[in-house]
Amino acid sequence: MSLARSIKLTPPQLLTSIFGGGIIIGALLLMLPFSTTEPISWIDALFTSTSAMTVTGLAVVDTGTRFTVFGQTIIMLLIQVGGLGIMSFAVLIFIMLGKKIGFKERMMVQHALNQTNIGGVILLVKRLFIFSFVIELIALIFLAIRWVPEFGWEKGLFFSLFHSISAFNNAGFGLLSDSLVQYAGDPLINITISLLFIIGGIGFTVLADLWEKKSYKKLSLHSKLMIIGTFIINTVAMLFIFFLEYGNAKTLGSLSLGDKMWTSYFQAVSTRTAGFNSIDIANLTDSTAFLMIILMFIGAGSASTGGGIKLTTFIVITFAVLSFIRGREDIVLLKRRLSTVYVVKALAISMIAIMFVFFATFAINISEPNTPFLKLMFEVVSAFGTVGLSMGVTPELSYVGRVIIIFIMFLGKIGPLTLAFSLAKPKREKIRYPNEDVLIG
Amino acid sequence: MSLARSIKLTPPQLLTSIFGGGIIIGALLLMLPFSTTEPISWIDALFTSTSAMTVTGLAVVDTGTRFTVFGQTIIMLLIQVGGLGIMSFAVLIFIMLGKKIGFKERMMVQHALNQTNIGGVILLVKRLFIFSFVIELIALIFLAIRWVPEFGWEKGLFFSLFHSISAFNNAGFGLLSDSLVQYAGDPLINITISLLFIIGGIGFTVLADLWEKKSYKKLSLHSKLMIIGTFIINTVAMLFIFFLEYGNAKTLGSLSLGDKMWTSYFQAVSTRTAGFNSIDIANLTDSTAFLMIILMFIGAGSASTGGGIKLTTFIVITFAVLSFIRGREDIVLLKRRLSTVYVVKALAISMIAIMFVFFATFAINISEPNTPFLKLMFEVVSAFGTVGLSMGVTPELSYVGRVIIIFIMFLGKIGPLTLAFSLAKPKREKIRYPNEDVLIG
Ligand SMILES: [K+]
Ligand SMILES: [K+]
Repeated sequence: MSLARSIKLTPPQLLTSIFGGGIIIGALLLMLPFSTTEPISWIDALFTSTSAMTVTGLAVVDTGTRFTVFGQTIIMLLIQVGGLGIMSFAVLIFIMLGKKIGFKERMMVQHALNQTNIGGVILLVKRLFIFSFVIELIALIFLAIRWVPEFGWEKGLFFSLFHSISAFNNAGFGLLSDSLVQYAGDPLINITISLLFIIGGIGFTVLADLWEKKSYKKLSLHSKLMIIGTFIINTVAMLFIFFLEYGNAKTLGSLSLGDKMWTSYFQAVSTRTAGFNSIDIANLTDSTAFLMIILMFIGAGSASTGGGIKLTTFIVITFAVLSFIRGREDIVLLKRRLSTVYVVKALAISMIAIMFVFFATFAINISEPNTPFLKLMFEVVSAFGTVGLSMGVTPELSYVGRVIIIFIMFLGKIGPLTLAFSLAKPKREKIRYPNEDVLIG
Repeated sequence: MSLARSIKLTPPQLLTSIFGGGIIIGALLLMLPFSTTEPISWIDALFTSTSAMTVTGLAVVDTGTRFTVFGQTIIMLLIQVGGLGIMSFAVLIFIMLGKKIGFKERMMVQHALNQTNIGGVILLVKRLFIFSFVIELIALIFLAIRWVPEFGWEKGLFFSLFHSISAFNNAGFGLLSDSLVQYAGDPLINITISLLFIIGGIGFTVLADLWEKKSYKKLSLHSKLMIIGTFIINTVAMLFIFFLEYGNAKTLGSLSLGDKMWTSYFQAVSTRTAGFNSIDIANLTDSTAFLMIILMFIGAGSASTGGGIKLTTFIVITFAVLSFIRGREDIVLLKRRLSTVYVVKALAISMIAIMFVFFATFAINISEPNTPFLKLMFEVVSAFGTVGLSMGVTPELSYVGRVIIIFIMFLGKIGPLTLAFSLAKPKREKIRYPNEDVLIG
């Protein structure tokens, strides 16, 4: 906060500048001759850099073959900086909100993070960094058990490090051209990778809350909702993917029952934001693809490495909608009442996101007239939720299409935080106009 | 209202019962041997009756050839009853709201309708009926100028009457199998039909307001927004359709410049709810189809024969979103400030509608696995907005698909009014839980 103040930028401006700067530096580094096995265009370098820094994972060129180990290391570092950067920023902004706004919000931030002074912030961010590195190291060891015997020490360790960082930061970048399809039934890879992105995606506030309280009962409403919500949405997604793809010969159809279940589990937990796939995304049925669009739009937890409108936002609007339909005044979640101001914010964020996604889908359908609508919508929402799953359209995009997706990835990552900040304390107009209403619905 | 009270039904229950009853009676009449040229299944009779009573216009069988003049007359009467019924009910509900709820809302209803006592209601509904019949009669004469010379007295007059009623009630049913494609460049047909559904779709409250005030300046905010909003959205839609379809050989491509312009105008104004088409909808580009999905979702005016979330709802959420993004507290429209409660209602109605449409789209994609996603989504939104435009999917739907569309048409027509009613005075819970908030976005 003191940093933000000393160079006279608002936190959202600072966040945008750092991210924009990081992306440009990354793109320049990826343009270096020893970054690639074969030169790439500047738009593809910018695309890859944006995709890495925003931890999206959409790729216009194959990460495993088109980049050298040096280039892949750049991508890995961009992912680490982007992922931790966003998490730290989210933590900083939430703490700042706790200082600047009302008692109720301050209580909430304190409740979730238990930190409101600058010393506490530094400690918290330090803890975030240490925690991330420890988790990534442990995962590295587990992944190495599979990949060192398969690829030898050097390549095996690099593979394990790359995938560990990519998974914890929910980046979805992989070095194998089929993501993780060839490990669809491998429990070690499935469990390690999925635990990484689930931990990274649930949000640091939840992890800090768990660490402090060490008891489910004492957790904040936010943490409880995230834990229950993650469990429910993952289970529902898994069942739908299993049954909708059961008979699809191009996806689950040819697998054994056990592999079908592993794949459904992995794809269900990966879709909301991680972006790894162990199923052929381009050949999904339309219903599964549309279900995934919804999941990607919802996304992961607040103050996490994931994107989307966030799971708690989705839970709040769902319960709000149920209350409205039943004609109830209060919105009650786990015996706690939500204040109207939070419901309005959740509805506003969702509506802004929907309008943005629709506008972008419309634009990209104009720029890519020959690509099926559903595949383009899938790619747009994947970029917006910084997911990185692809129905195979991204590498075929026109120049304008690439620019649109770069723009969506950037806004998908920076937008929600910036919006949360400006929604926190709205300006009152100098001139207040008289009130008059209109008919609705 | 006294009727609603004497038989102990809430107005939404009464509305649902009358509509449900009317649809069933209509379906039975359409099953009569002399209603059809060739017998139809009971699901198709129910589909047609629902489509007519909800003034949607989606058709599983060709209205012009499969039904006899008797069957077509049944459909025409269902349209008239459904259209006027919904308008009268909307007027009644808004007046009741004016009696039951706060001063602010009462002022608004008074402002828009200038009537709050029972005598006034009866007068108002009488005026609505007389007004509708006069408009339909005038249009009948204009249409007869084209169709009597073409089809002779008997068929020409019946055609004119049917299309006049169908257009004023925004039903979109036609007796020609290509809707109005063969009259794409005919000014008489274009102007008469489009004026009919524009007047029917702007909402009776606006017409009553215009009739009372006779001056733009004195109009209510609602009426002003509807007039300006209708003009802007129609112009934008027209330009997009013109440019997006200009080079499409299967739609506008082969027409002269004048016909291109007439067709763009007509399709732009017809799409939000009327449902007539003078362009081949099945061959639109994906971008135009998606634009039309948005237009159909937005719909026409409150207390009109049209459907959708309503134009004013869309205007309110758009301005709300702009205010949120700019970090402003007030939502200002034409120098009037909207109360938060209206903004919440607009956001809630839109979100409920989006969730409903998404859920229905998901369901119908499961029931129709071999139909392209965009075409199914188009059909779902067309049913939800009681528009009736079709990309050709409806006649090919499976049994389950037909049931889904029937259900959507019914809810699309009854839902918004019912929701408006239950949102008007939410119940307070007996137990109020303590307040706690969650992180959003
Ligand atoms: K990702
Ligand atoms: K219609």
